[in-house]
Parts: sequence; C-alpha cells; structure tokens
Amino acid sequence: MTMRLDEEQCRSRLGTAGHGVFGTVHAARGVDVVPVVWVFAGDRITIPVDAIKAKSGARLQRLANLDADDRGVLLVDHYDDDWSRLWWVRVHGRAVEAVPSGEELDALAAAFPAYRSRGAVTKTIVMAVDTITGWAAGG
Amino acid sequence: MTMRLDEEQCRSRLGTAGHGVFGTVHAARGVDVVPVVWVFAGDRITIPVDAIKAKSGARLQRLANLDADDRGVLLVDHYDDDWSRLWWVRVHGRAVEAVPSGEELDALAAAFPAYRSRGAVTKTIVMAVDTITGWAAGG
Repeated sequence: MTMRLDEEQCRSRLGTAGHGVFGTVHAARGVDVVPVVWVFAGDRITIPVDAIKAKSGARLQRLANLDADDRGVLLVDHYDDDWSRLWWVRVHGRAVEAVPSGEELDALAAAFPAYRSRGAVTKTIVMAVDTITGWAAGG
Repeated sequence: MTMRLDEEQCRSRLGTAGHGVFGTVHAARGVDVVPVVWVFAGDRITIPVDAIKAKSGARLQRLANLDADDRGVLLVDHYDDDWSRLWWVRVHGRAVEAVPSGEELDALAAAFPAYRSRGAVTKTIVMAVDTITGWAAGG
C-alpha cells in the first residue's frame, strides 16, 4: 500500500529542521540540485549559505540561478533498504537570498552544531512555501 | 578541508547502483525532483520505472517533463551528522524513456531485491552521462 500524504502529514514529517536536496533552474543545464540543510518556521524554509562547507569561492551557482529564476524546490527524502519505510516530502516555492534573522541563526545553531560559532552563517536562501506534497510507502 | 572530486573519484564514489534524487525541468514549477534508485554501467544511468512504488496512475510527471525537455540530473548525496564525512556526486545528461535490457534488469534485480520478481520493472529512464562533478568534505 502506498499513500499520498495530505498537507498536515507532509508538514509533520518535514519537521522543523533537516537535510535535503534543493533544486533550481539553470539556463544551460536545465536543473541544478545540491544537498542542503534547512530549518522550517513561519511557513518559510531557510537554507544557510555558510563558510564551512566552502565551495569554489565565486558566487554560489544556486544564488546565480535564483537571480535569473526564483523558482525553487526542496526534497526531503527518507530512504530505507526496507521499501515499506520509504517516504518523501517536497516543497515548491519562490526563493530569494536573504540575511539571517537572529531567530533563524538560533534555530540553525540548535539544529546543527557546526553553526554555533559566530559568523558561520553569513546569508541564507529563504523559500516561501507555495505547495507541499509528499508520499509514503507502507501503511 | 574540502575538495572538488575529479571525474575518476566521482565515478568511484558513485559505484554501480544506489539511490539518489533525479531532477527534471517542469514548465510551470521550474524544477521537479524525485527520489530514485539507479544502476550505472556503460556510461549510462538507468532509473527504473516500476509498478511497486506505485504513484497516481497517470503518466509519471518525470516522463512528461522529459518529453518536453530531456535535460536531467542525478544527485547522489551522502549525509552524515559528522560534516567531515559529507560528500556528493552529481551527473548531468540527456535522459529518455526506454525499455530495459536483460542486463539492466539483472543489474536492478541484483541491487534491489524488490526487483527480483518478473515484471517489476516495465520501463526505465536512461540518462547518457554528459558531466560528472562531485565534492567531499574532510580529507
């Protein structure tokens, strides 16, 4: 048995923090996807842009992509060798670069120890939730 | 320390089978992403379309998306609470619907027990590898 999750079930499984995959539109490649961590509060997904998991130095491709097209998607996927335990939740929305609020910094630090040091998160991507869908196996 | 993986390292970490996230272009939503399993051989990523993790019955959105735009991406992401163990590998390419070969069915059955029953995999998405990139923390 498989089931489409309703919005309340999706939000419950999503929780308030976690890791997932963030997708943006890339003009040439079509789609870019990157692993991210995130916190969820006030109907906003906040994805840190940090100085820890440092990339190539130039403006992050995901930010350049959002400059041109602000449609983003976050997938939170639970994989298990036992396929009766599979589930995923997906959030679509408009995403923009932002400066983290104190509340967001606190939530990120609470969820991810690496963010407890001052200055670890310098900016964020904030996605306003448009639609949430999800699916679960088993039942 | 973090490092960009070279192509050989990417292929080594990717291996011959696994699970990940597959992204396609959706005209209205921008990007669609779904969890998938896959096998990799002959420079082709093969993603089964199966009758087990059944969806809503209509033609799968990922196939409709590929009809309109064949650019696909697969992300294989290793997450760990210890961020020195993070890594990911990403494959971009052109993806098309296909009928599985006997070799592909054997590889899928070897990697995923649920695919051992005849008829479990009826078609596939095959992505010819264009570029592979990857990243690892630690070192």
